[in-house]
Amino acid sequence: MASAETSSAETSGAGTSGAGTSSPVLPDPAGRRYVLTLGCPDRTGIVARISSFLADVGGWITEAAYHSDAETGWFFTRQAVRADSVASTADQLRERFATEVAPELGDETDWRLTDTGERKSVVLLVSKESHCLTDLLGRAYRGELPASIEAVIGNHRDLEELPTRFGIPFHHVPFAGERKAEAFAEVGRIVDAHSPDAIVLARFMQILPPQLCDAWAGRALNIHHSFLPSFVGARPYHQAFARGVKLIGATCHYVTADLDAGPIIEQDVIRVDHGDSVSDMVRQGRDIETLVLARGLRWHLEDRILVHGRKTVVFS
Amino acid sequence: MASAETSSAETSGAGTSGAGTSSPVLPDPAGRRYVLTLGCPDRTGIVARISSFLADVGGWITEAAYHSDAETGWFFTRQAVRADSVASTADQLRERFATEVAPELGDETDWRLTDTGERKSVVLLVSKESHCLTDLLGRAYRGELPASIEAVIGNHRDLEELPTRFGIPFHHVPFAGERKAEAFAEVGRIVDAHSPDAIVLARFMQILPPQLCDAWAGRALNIHHSFLPSFVGARPYHQAFARGVKLIGATCHYVTADLDAGPIIEQDVIRVDHGDSVSDMVRQGRDIETLVLARGLRWHLEDRILVHGRKTVVFS
Amino acid sequence: MASAETSSAETSGAGTSGAGTSSPVLPDPAGRRYVLTLGCPDRTGIVARISSFLADVGGWITEAAYHSDAETGWFFTRQAVRADSVASTADQLRERFATEVAPELGDETDWRLTDTGERKSVVLLVSKESHCLTDLLGRAYRGELPASIEAVIGNHRDLEELPTRFGIPFHHVPFAGERKAEAFAEVGRIVDAHSPDAIVLARFMQILPPQLCDAWAGRALNIHHSFLPSFVGARPYHQAFARGVKLIGATCHYVTADLDAGPIIEQDVIRVDHGDSVSDMVRQGRDIETLVLARGLRWHLEDRILVHGRKTVVFS
Amino acid sequence: MASAETSSAETSGAGTSGAGTSSPVLPDPAGRRYVLTLGCPDRTGIVARISSFLADVGGWITEAAYHSDAETGWFFTRQAVRADSVASTADQLRERFATEVAPELGDETDWRLTDTGERKSVVLLVSKESHCLTDLLGRAYRGELPASIEAVIGNHRDLEELPTRFGIPFHHVPFAGERKAEAFAEVGRIVDAHSPDAIVLARFMQILPPQLCDAWAGRALNIHHSFLPSFVGARPYHQAFARGVKLIGATCHYVTADLDAGPIIEQDVIRVDHGDSVSDMVRQGRDIETLVLARGLRWHLEDRILVHGRKTVVFS
Repeated sequence: MASAETSSAETSGAGTSGAGTSSPVLPDPAGRRYVLTLGCPDRTGIVARISSFLADVGGWITEAAYHSDAETGWFFTRQAVRADSVASTADQLRERFATEVAPELGDETDWRLTDTGERKSVVLLVSKESHCLTDLLGRAYRGELPASIEAVIGNHRDLEELPTRFGIPFHHVPFAGERKAEAFAEVGRIVDAHSPDAIVLARFMQILPPQLCDAWAGRALNIHHSFLPSFVGARPYHQAFARGVKLIGATCHYVTADLDAGPIIEQDVIRVDHGDSVSDMVRQGRDIETLVLARGLRWHLEDRILVHGRKTVVFS
Repeated sequence: MASAETSSAETSGAGTSGAGTSSPVLPDPAGRRYVLTLGCPDRTGIVARISSFLADVGGWITEAAYHSDAETGWFFTRQAVRADSVASTADQLRERFATEVAPELGDETDWRLTDTGERKSVVLLVSKESHCLTDLLGRAYRGELPASIEAVIGNHRDLEELPTRFGIPFHHVPFAGERKAEAFAEVGRIVDAHSPDAIVLARFMQILPPQLCDAWAGRALNIHHSFLPSFVGARPYHQAFARGVKLIGATCHYVTADLDAGPIIEQDVIRVDHGDSVSDMVRQGRDIETLVLARGLRWHLEDRILVHGRKTVVFS
Repeated sequence: MASAETSSAETSGAGTSGAGTSSPVLPDPAGRRYVLTLGCPDRTGIVARISSFLADVGGWITEAAYHSDAETGWFFTRQAVRADSVASTADQLRERFATEVAPELGDETDWRLTDTGERKSVVLLVSKESHCLTDLLGRAYRGELPASIEAVIGNHRDLEELPTRFGIPFHHVPFAGERKAEAFAEVGRIVDAHSPDAIVLARFMQILPPQLCDAWAGRALNIHHSFLPSFVGARPYHQAFARGVKLIGATCHYVTADLDAGPIIEQDVIRVDHGDSVSDMVRQGRDIETLVLARGLRWHLEDRILVHGRKTVVFS
Repeated sequence: MASAETSSAETSGAGTSGAGTSSPVLPDPAGRRYVLTLGCPDRTGIVARISSFLADVGGWITEAAYHSDAETGWFFTRQAVRADSVASTADQLRERFATEVAPELGDETDWRLTDTGERKSVVLLVSKESHCLTDLLGRAYRGELPASIEAVIGNHRDLEELPTRFGIPFHHVPFAGERKAEAFAEVGRIVDAHSPDAIVLARFMQILPPQLCDAWAGRALNIHHSFLPSFVGARPYHQAFARGVKLIGATCHYVTADLDAGPIIEQDVIRVDHGDSVSDMVRQGRDIETLVLARGLRWHLEDRILVHGRKTVVFS
């Protein structure tokens, strides 16, 4: 217990009352960053080329991470510079980088330059389980999520009231019977209307059709309630219980057309023992699912994840 | 991603819509338990005496835990029996135990017999930080907390809308200026009106006066945002940052008149590094504070904690 | 750094020089225990029956653990009593339990009563990797392992000098070419000559034939270098690297005729990231393999593990 | 259990028999690296300046890490380049960096350029506890430690035979009675004769005098058996037991004249509960002490640690 109110100075900005989903991520103007992420074939001099470019525009680097992948011969980097140290706008920087630097790095180069001052958006897909939803709503409320939650779509009405209470629209799209294709088309329309930076399957329990996997490639995140590749598919806690494992886990991964086989973003585990029933595992598993999804989503929104083939580079 | 709806069978009971705080903990009648907890001076034959008593009344033991403390010569146990295996009511059992068994175990024996069918109640004290509050509201909503949240008291209005949205009364008791003693008296009246099984200081940031520590002894839980005994008092994340520790932690403990020195219930840590600022620690620390408090509160409500001197026995 | 020599009083007994394998586990006479482990069909009154028996013989219980398995309807217990509190010898206790108690618990009852004063023995099977071997030799040296290491068998000579330096015989049994069956027969003879309480495959890298699995059922422990059931079989770190998992693990399990599918005793994981090559994983994985095997072996030697079907109950 | 010998291909190089302390760290010639570490006042363009220099000499960067410290305005970096990509020797590189780059970065710049082809050396100081010693000997044996262990110094003879078996000299320097100053002088002479890259207090249990702390600043590592700053000084496990903490830990830190207050390199914890006695904590604590020291020492030897004031930057 911290004494009295003095410790309130330690908070990093409490959620502003009732407007969590639109609260500022970076209340300090100096906190605005331009973030460059890039992957290209590795060779000598890339770091020098990129850092010279950033130095030329006056960029004060606050974070820089590199990865040279010996297996694939690929180079990855993420660099954040203070926006107030650069005279150019984000668009001007993109233009200069595209013409001056990118061509030297080869045709396969994959890069992006984002501005943390441009707020990102998220759409959540849910079913009946509330834990990931309430957790993300709580993070948005307290201004911790670097994005606004634009909409929640549920294939059941069970969770309707939760986003509604936070002023976020809920869309009910029933999946019963023969209307699955139609339902997914409707989900697609609702999602695409927001052009979200992230589509989060927060225990959605429905397998996305290939066309949505393609359309949302690199933007759709799923939380699977096992330590993949163990216990793919349905009822992983039942599988874990039957096998008698001593740890259960959760995996956040990008959604691809291969079930539970997309690039893994984050994983974590917790200890269980012989005394834990399936429902104990389900209960304890919620905490780890919630945390793993929140971390993965945060890194995604902060442009900390670069996908390369079936794997990810995470500059966390 | 589990396929389709089949996996919904894995859930242990989703929160019933809009009535989280009154949802049943144990929807299965067979799930009702009588729970005996006991501490007494150790000697040969105690286990036999207690188990014979439980066997006599037909008790089907579902959980049993023992601890023989070599340092203090004390014996502790917690036993749960299926309520439907016993012909007596909880009151009848208490009466029989009090007359038949307890006297044989010595005057210092401290025991309790609870009925999980008797729903417990909780009152939360908060300030401006929302994370523990939203987490506990979410747990209550999904029926995971074995108690109802009766009221939330805040020394600021910042979090008023959160419990209100879940239908739980919020009481604003300002602490500014010279009125601290008066304010605590008011908090005491509001809390005591509910005779709660747990009073949770969910980042309350105010030091309880001795008379409330006494009145609520063994029922008031605090979450401190450090790994005690490191960083007692104000602004522990600042202290942790200044010292350059590689892990930060949180501690759930019973409140006593000695600041941050009450019996520790649960602790956990997460890794930080040189790249983490104080505000990064504050943000990451929230997740561990939330989890540690939730685990500690659950164990308290399930009568899994026995206090002995400055320490706890936790039959988790 | 603890000040001066005062803190040496904190040690629990340093290894006696050069005689690690025969050092006393429990230097304190009062530390000797009789340990009863038991599994049987669950019903009311078992705890009372067993604890009454122990009370009758004067048994001072120092540890008692129970598990009532709701899925299989089975009951498990482990109880340790101070040997100096019981007038009988271990054999007399066994005789009395066999005639007085066991018959009441049903034909399927599986029980054992051991005496920690009877030192246990271990035989290690190794190949070329030294980490588990040096770790176990170190534990035996400092008197931490509740057993003596009687022999080490290697299918290569690479590690010969290690046990030899500690005064433990090393047997080289080559497996090359067509002589695998013959080699296993020789391994079997060497092992069985010691009637060991544990046969530890300390990164042995050879699949035991079914007849040895049968002969050593419940006594042969393997350490697999993955978090099973992920990455069964050969080169699990290569598999983990290819899949891009964010945690790697190790699993200690009893050996059965099904490859890597025996009852799991213990598992743990460590974090890896995109910067870790296969050889980094191999290196970091050694630490977790070593710890997981050491914990599993300790629990086995302390009779803390009860096997039930494909799973274990571990009273750790 | 990996099938047959195929999995042996996964090993990263088994220890060569009997010569662990002189085994090659990097058997692959391509594995040799020049490693630049640097700290200086932060300003725009440093990364560009350093990376241009490295590009100019043809340096193929395999690892690069940066930290810009917002609190102190300091910049830190560690970069590893393939030695075979650079035409210069390490000395030539140092000369060029000293004349061409360093002067531009300010007088306070602290930098170093090391060659992983130049094997490092370690001297260990021990007392009676063997666990850290046997662990480090095992790591050296299997070629995992990027250094050779040149000597072991003990204030008791208890552990003499351990290094001796591995062909490493043991020096007994008794500390009894009034000869402490003299004993430390002798320790100093033995250590300094090796000019070691690391002096490791592997549970040495003696407080270094200020002159040795100064002489070995930045090279002397201690392992303290608590999660500092909790339980400074003597008998930390007794302190932990008395306080009833739920986790115990270990801390590897650089030795300074302030007891247990030097810059922290690494920390970790393990869970304990009410059932663990002090001697259980001592036993379990050994595993975490061992791991934390091994990680800290490895990072130190790989030039991954930069000290800044009371804190460290660890590019692990």
